[in-house]
Amino acid sequence: MKDKAAIAGIGETEYSKNSGMSELALFLQATERAAADAGVSLKDIDGIIVSKGFGPAVKELVTNLGLKELTYTSSIDLGGASPVASVQTAAMVVTAGLARNVLCVTGWNGYSGRRAGRAETASPVTDTLLRRSFEIPFGWQVPAQWYAVMCRRHMHEYGTTSQQLGTIALTVRKHAILNEKALMRKPITMQDYLNSRIIADPFCLFDCCLETDGAAAVLVASAERARDLKQRPVYISGAAIGYPPLPDQIINRPTITELGAKSAAPRAFAMAGVSPRDIDIAEIYDCFTYILLCQLEDIGFCKKGEGGSFVEDGRIELGGELPVNTHGGLLSQAHVLGMNHVVEAVKQLRGQAGAAQVRDAELVLVSGFGDPGMSAVMILRK
Amino acid sequence: MKDKAAIAGIGETEYSKNSGMSELALFLQATERAAADAGVSLKDIDGIIVSKGFGPAVKELVTNLGLKELTYTSSIDLGGASPVASVQTAAMVVTAGLARNVLCVTGWNGYSGRRAGRAETASPVTDTLLRRSFEIPFGWQVPAQWYAVMCRRHMHEYGTTSQQLGTIALTVRKHAILNEKALMRKPITMQDYLNSRIIADPFCLFDCCLETDGAAAVLVASAERARDLKQRPVYISGAAIGYPPLPDQIINRPTITELGAKSAAPRAFAMAGVSPRDIDIAEIYDCFTYILLCQLEDIGFCKKGEGGSFVEDGRIELGGELPVNTHGGLLSQAHVLGMNHVVEAVKQLRGQAGAAQVRDAELVLVSGFGDPGMSAVMILRK
Repeated sequence: MKDKAAIAGIGETEYSKNSGMSELALFLQATERAAADAGVSLKDIDGIIVSKGFGPAVKELVTNLGLKELTYTSSIDLGGASPVASVQTAAMVVTAGLARNVLCVTGWNGYSGRRAGRAETASPVTDTLLRRSFEIPFGWQVPAQWYAVMCRRHMHEYGTTSQQLGTIALTVRKHAILNEKALMRKPITMQDYLNSRIIADPFCLFDCCLETDGAAAVLVASAERARDLKQRPVYISGAAIGYPPLPDQIINRPTITELGAKSAAPRAFAMAGVSPRDIDIAEIYDCFTYILLCQLEDIGFCKKGEGGSFVEDGRIELGGELPVNTHGGLLSQAHVLGMNHVVEAVKQLRGQAGAAQVRDAELVLVSGFGDPGMSAVMILRK
Repeated sequence: MKDKAAIAGIGETEYSKNSGMSELALFLQATERAAADAGVSLKDIDGIIVSKGFGPAVKELVTNLGLKELTYTSSIDLGGASPVASVQTAAMVVTAGLARNVLCVTGWNGYSGRRAGRAETASPVTDTLLRRSFEIPFGWQVPAQWYAVMCRRHMHEYGTTSQQLGTIALTVRKHAILNEKALMRKPITMQDYLNSRIIADPFCLFDCCLETDGAAAVLVASAERARDLKQRPVYISGAAIGYPPLPDQIINRPTITELGAKSAAPRAFAMAGVSPRDIDIAEIYDCFTYILLCQLEDIGFCKKGEGGSFVEDGRIELGGELPVNTHGGLLSQAHVLGMNHVVEAVKQLRGQAGAAQVRDAELVLVSGFGDPGMSAVMILRK
């Protein structure tokens, strides 16, 4: 599949705390913008891949977009890894010839509507049997709680410090300040970080990502077709998904300091024929600072346990060895389930990343991450 | 994609009105049987494709099946067309090399658990905007009601009769009587049919399919790999999905006597390089007699409006020109969302269809159909 498909268009709505729009309207707006960006007529979209559990039914999109014919659709059930994984499936679909213009779209009214971080949105009826039986009744209900446990274990095993987590929060905030589409643009200091209130120990406020209203979309076409469209194509060189052992369970895993990225990354790199050293920028799913840190290890940017020191000394800042989350990520730009990471990767490779532009970037890695440990890793090429 | 992938294994649970098992247990049992049938170790399953809205989360399957590594998963959101469409996606995945042993599994406790035919299971909160606003509040809530309107229009436009619908019910029942796994094995006469109580005019009891507990699964591998497995491979020659115009709306469609099969079938036939005349057996999604009839037209077995006369004179019976639903279908075998149609097609092509075996069948067409008009059409080859 290497380089046989490309991202030909990107689209984003405003990111806000109160969109004043239905989720359907958000999806339609992001889609219109992605199609216009690619120079593809809306009605010619013939494939739609969505993130399971987010947004309207595909049939509502088909009607409201006025599509001529839909020849492929599926939905990806990997939580926050779904947007990246949806691009993988789109690449497969255009390569197989089942559709020509495949839309990957996701979003939500994640602030004004349902709030992923609130216990009352945990689903005691439809969730997994284990979680319903042994976790939710005891109050272990929301992502901050699950990942806090993993993080504390990592600190215990490897000596990872709060300051190192704080360095991630500060770095990503610095990048957000350069981004007009970012919601959090006020500078924070390490002292601000260390003084901020605890959400779920060891996570303080700045370890936790935003909750946001908004949607983002990309349009995928075959590499050949993308070369005839409006924008410079961004090629999908490698893409893989991965599960952790015992994916429905955190408490029984042989280790809780490894994520699905450990399994996905080698396959994504093998497909692309590159290694972590070749990557110019990484847009890493950052629902929590620790989840970003852990993925840096699992993807292979550093060894297991060395993520804490890896993020120091400006290494993940713009201008550093591996700029990470050049848009501000979920932590400081917006929580659009990581589709904003894909959009930023495309902007970087097109040279449209504004003040955060990394010069001569050729390869960008994008990761997605979903409850509680499923991953998608993708390598995009100029 | 033609013939590059094959169905290598099939598995079914008992079909019943009270499984006494969780949906997770049903899924696991059907999967174990499909893997054993193919001669593939359970832990080597590396892809899972499910029908959105049915069954447990994929992560629960991964844990409970003890998979080594899952490298692909997605879920198909086409209602009852999802099982057939899931096989299409599986074929694409093994062809692209993203996984080697892809499980397609579906099922439900459709009798002892939730009942698709009951108004109280219609979802006023999560359903489409149009349905929530203008259909559910007025009592137009369940499939029998939606398709009754389509059927009545077909009768008005083309002179289709109740006797012709009854012929479908009687034919499919005759086939079920030959099938030990069928739930309805008592003969019915045309008089029984005409005397049975009205469910949603013009549909009487025997126009409506069963509600069933059960699950069914198939295992898909590349054609090359399938040839080394235990069973004779059944090749996936063509597969396509299709939407009707205005898929989220019945009431505003330009015509309500055409389904998504009209759009899907030509693409499935083109991929397989065959025409309706080449098909030996058709396993057609039959949630209602009329939906089967309408698909016979839309797939191209006869012209629009001629479905009524097409089903007469034993043409769709075993021994007839085009045997249809040789297992008894949803109407008389079991409602397993049409995955039982896929399983029966494989049995026929392997020569394992018992008393209903069609001699020398080379090509079987399988269709799926989902609320309210989405279709999947697949052509399987010996």
